[in-house]
Amino acid sequence: ARPKVGYFYSGKSTINYFAERISNIKVSEVKSLPVVVSEGTSVYDAIVTLFLEDVGTIFVTTEGLLSGVVSRKDFLKSAIGGTDINKIPVGVIMTRMPNIVVTEPDESVLDAAIKIIEHQVDSLPIVEKIKNENGEEGYKVIGRISKTNITRLFVDIANTE
Amino acid sequence: ARPKVGYFYSGKSTINYFAERISNIKVSEVKSLPVVVSEGTSVYDAIVTLFLEDVGTIFVTTEGLLSGVVSRKDFLKSAIGGTDINKIPVGVIMTRMPNIVVTEPDESVLDAAIKIIEHQVDSLPIVEKIKNENGEEGYKVIGRISKTNITRLFVDIANTE
Repeated sequence: ARPKVGYFYSGKSTINYFAERISNIKVSEVKSLPVVVSEGTSVYDAIVTLFLEDVGTIFVTTEGLLSGVVSRKDFLKSAIGGTDINKIPVGVIMTRMPNIVVTEPDESVLDAAIKIIEHQVDSLPIVEKIKNENGEEGYKVIGRISKTNITRLFVDIANTE
Repeated sequence: ARPKVGYFYSGKSTINYFAERISNIKVSEVKSLPVVVSEGTSVYDAIVTLFLEDVGTIFVTTEGLLSGVVSRKDFLKSAIGGTDINKIPVGVIMTRMPNIVVTEPDESVLDAAIKIIEHQVDSLPIVEKIKNENGEEGYKVIGRISKTNITRLFVDIANTE
């Protein structure tokens, strides 16, 4: 007798179901391999690595712990800024801990996507808390999740039959 | 009596509903403004525009028609390649028509996302077929859809209550 109400209810519960399903997809299920260099790598060599690995963001580790992130945008700024990219190490231009937004394998892809949008970054390092050989606490980089992974997931879910 | 079968059926039809709903969202509903320069703009000025507008891709028009696309990756390659970015015009380094993947306002976001993934680009120009003042046929650039738009849509749909 009131089909419109029924329709709306059905639609709402379907979307809730979708939201719930999305919330159950973990970062570990859609991750890519991280590309990592050390802090002393020259900006030029880091850019070459970026092209060879065909990624948009490079992670920097120091003594086995995440210490920085450099994006294509950071590299471009550096390359046109008149700095000698052959001499300057990547440590000088990177965004440094603790100003790095990270995610963990058990976090939902939805929460990772929200972090990407809110912090206006292209990708997040997927990390695990560890102690390095010197007993320092920090993050080990075990993966990468980017807007590309999320766009691909969007396509995969929409194409599911 | 056979709850598992019932559960599976329900899940399947829900996902089909989602796929159908996604297919009904048009590119025009999630588009951003395009950033456009002319073919004679220097690479340096185009990079400055990229930073000022905070986009990842710039579109190039000639006589009012889409003639090229330049990404952050193209700019970075050019900046470290030893070319004089103050003298070289953007027309020299851009990807040129007809090698540009485009979308139209009525295309579904899903189809645009598939193009982005398959052609490994960060964004697509949203275009309309027109004739310019010289009677030449081509595309007018009316918008832009990127992995950022799709990631945001993913979050919006998943957060819908």
